[in-house]
Amino acid sequence: MANDKLFLEEKETGRIEAFSDGVFAIAITLLILDIKVPHMRDLTSAGGLVQALLGLWPAYIAYLISFATILIIWVNHHRIFNYIKRSDDAFLFLNGFLLFLVVFIPFPTALLSEYLTSQYAHIVSAIYSGTFLMVAVALQLLWRHAAKDKRLISRNADHCFISNISKQYRYGPPLYLLALMLSFIWAPASIAMCFLLAVFFSIAGAITKMYCEIEIK
Amino acid sequence: MANDKLFLEEKETGRIEAFSDGVFAIAITLLILDIKVPHMRDLTSAGGLVQALLGLWPAYIAYLISFATILIIWVNHHRIFNYIKRSDDAFLFLNGFLLFLVVFIPFPTALLSEYLTSQYAHIVSAIYSGTFLMVAVALQLLWRHAAKDKRLISRNADHCFISNISKQYRYGPPLYLLALMLSFIWAPASIAMCFLLAVFFSIAGAITKMYCEIEIK
Amino acid sequence: MANDKLFLEEKETGRIEAFSDGVFAIAITLLILDIKVPHMRDLTSAGGLVQALLGLWPAYIAYLISFATILIIWVNHHRIFNYIKRSDDAFLFLNGFLLFLVVFIPFPTALLSEYLTSQYAHIVSAIYSGTFLMVAVALQLLWRHAAKDKRLISRNADHCFISNISKQYRYGPPLYLLALMLSFIWAPASIAMCFLLAVFFSIAGAITKMYCEIEIK
Amino acid sequence: MANDKLFLEEKETGRIEAFSDGVFAIAITLLILDIKVPHMRDLTSAGGLVQALLGLWPAYIAYLISFATILIIWVNHHRIFNYIKRSDDAFLFLNGFLLFLVVFIPFPTALLSEYLTSQYAHIVSAIYSGTFLMVAVALQLLWRHAAKDKRLISRNADHCFISNISKQYRYGPPLYLLALMLSFIWAPASIAMCFLLAVFFSIAGAITKMYCEIEIK
Repeated sequence: MANDKLFLEEKETGRIEAFSDGVFAIAITLLILDIKVPHMRDLTSAGGLVQALLGLWPAYIAYLISFATILIIWVNHHRIFNYIKRSDDAFLFLNGFLLFLVVFIPFPTALLSEYLTSQYAHIVSAIYSGTFLMVAVALQLLWRHAAKDKRLISRNADHCFISNISKQYRYGPPLYLLALMLSFIWAPASIAMCFLLAVFFSIAGAITKMYCEIEIK
Repeated sequence: MANDKLFLEEKETGRIEAFSDGVFAIAITLLILDIKVPHMRDLTSAGGLVQALLGLWPAYIAYLISFATILIIWVNHHRIFNYIKRSDDAFLFLNGFLLFLVVFIPFPTALLSEYLTSQYAHIVSAIYSGTFLMVAVALQLLWRHAAKDKRLISRNADHCFISNISKQYRYGPPLYLLALMLSFIWAPASIAMCFLLAVFFSIAGAITKMYCEIEIK
Repeated sequence: MANDKLFLEEKETGRIEAFSDGVFAIAITLLILDIKVPHMRDLTSAGGLVQALLGLWPAYIAYLISFATILIIWVNHHRIFNYIKRSDDAFLFLNGFLLFLVVFIPFPTALLSEYLTSQYAHIVSAIYSGTFLMVAVALQLLWRHAAKDKRLISRNADHCFISNISKQYRYGPPLYLLALMLSFIWAPASIAMCFLLAVFFSIAGAITKMYCEIEIK
Repeated sequence: MANDKLFLEEKETGRIEAFSDGVFAIAITLLILDIKVPHMRDLTSAGGLVQALLGLWPAYIAYLISFATILIIWVNHHRIFNYIKRSDDAFLFLNGFLLFLVVFIPFPTALLSEYLTSQYAHIVSAIYSGTFLMVAVALQLLWRHAAKDKRLISRNADHCFISNISKQYRYGPPLYLLALMLSFIWAPASIAMCFLLAVFFSIAGAITKMYCEIEIK
């Protein structure tokens, strides 16, 4: 019975991962729908298509940053599933909450595309960075729940990795909170910070890996 | 030959599950397309963007409840596939019918987003809760067909889980019928009930699990 | 080396199947986007929402038939992948051609939704059934290529199944050709035939299975 | 520990592949959304629906070429993952860059559909072929990074395949650069070349395979 249960649990984390992967893959691909093709009839005789395409720059930036951020969330989601070997109901709920926010990302992305150059830049960049703040919180809650007393963690998971992920994730919420606050002062700075954070968190994972692999040797 | 057949059958439930997972993941992600970004030119000078975004509250509520409901259907779909190890044609047909309804969900969700605050609130909440009623019926039909005389169930599946799932699923259709009837009286109550039912069914699974694990011990 | 090659080939059919499954799952889910929510401002004071929703019946029918057809194509695609264990370049190309047509299905579905009740009913039902005709041809080409001299078929595949699938697929193209010709005479008959063919092919698979299982015993 | 690390790495390439597959499958399916159904009210009394559908030919061509190209990218992506057995951070980044471009493809496809017959044909075919040029560069960077000193390659990978893939990928960027330059001279030639390149690269893989299999024998 115990073996059977273990098998079911391993299979369950595999399935949660596969379903989450599907959601990540679709959410990241739907982002392209926010770059709207300018219609022939809307082109002004003066500027023409090139002008119209250049005018879409907020949409390109929003696409780039949202793509990078969802990709980093996916990388992190997978990284922690390397160590998570069991599941419980709170974990399922927290993972569902994370996916809820990830699926939501195309909406603030579309808002940013439409309003970054308007008088509403503060509002849309606040909603944009605020969404990422909530994602960072959700990811931390998910990991904390799993890592507390290693309750959902594989037994032979290396301690160095576990504690380094915990350390690193602690930076997420305050840094995105900073990006949120920046949006009220100067919207472009907030957007730039969201991009830099995606870069930072992609490097952070590599640093942890290197650091812990040196320690193991 | 018998072994070969068994292998094909196990592989087949795995594939039905993988295909269904793909459909669930896409249906849940398409929900975000129902939250339409307000266009610059449609903003009234008075209220502006904030007003317009606040005015989208029916869309946010519809997104939240539909997301939660599809997630719970997915959780339940997987829960029963833990025990189902064979497939037959009626099962394939019933699973197809369930997916047909799941893929349909974004449409009543969009209807609810557009008309919840109009004089048509009764109609759209009836269509919304009615769709969930049909999903509950489809899920019960799928499970009943599989569980009858345990015909598609794994031999070493625990009896407690099987009978508890059966008990629990019996509540689905009458409760969603109640939500449907409420929609004719007071639309918001119907919508609230749909949300509460998603919460209830997410907890119900956990209770079954706890209850049966105690019994096993 | 031979073993290695065999392993790569088995892995390759698995991957072709997984990618095709993803495409099927997305194409079937995108169908719902063809049922457009009627906008508040387009409602006539007389009829209102109920009238507008009832007026969408061509979209519901198109959704139902396209969903059923893609589901049956998926079932058949999987059925033949049960027996196909190798891949070659022509097979990859033919599978790509099948997916090309499957991804195309939402377009004739949308055409049917918009024009079934117009004077263009003949044209759109011809395009609709013509698309399915091409799918039937593509599926038959894919199977024929694989089954000829059993070149891509598993060695221990039962002969009865192989020859029965071949027999059955031969009916696909002429029957859909009939549906196409009907569309020029009476559009509703063509559409009804497309639906009946989906039902027929879902039953046909079951009959083959029963027939061959009796023979084995 | 070493074994554990190896296992994690193998699992990681498997997951990168599965996620990438999801993105490819969705991007290829979203292409159909660029073929817009002509609306009843936009039909001119003279030409009618047939005229309107024939007028969509740039959209059909764009759909065909983009579908073929994404399919070929997928085939190549999988081909190289047959040999890649490890992952590192630069590899993850380069794969993310490739996916970024693949997800972008529906946008230049939509541009081509809308503007191929306008005075902007040069611009949109330049953007279209330019996107494919970047994809070819990204695919080559990904492969080069993996194949350099065989750092991410399976040990028992055949040398002939590895060196032939390297040779072949070298042709990608200059050939697509030629297509890009053609777009400034005569747009249709650029588009035709994009199609021919998709055909060429699908055949190139087959030739490598045949050539190396002869050598092995």
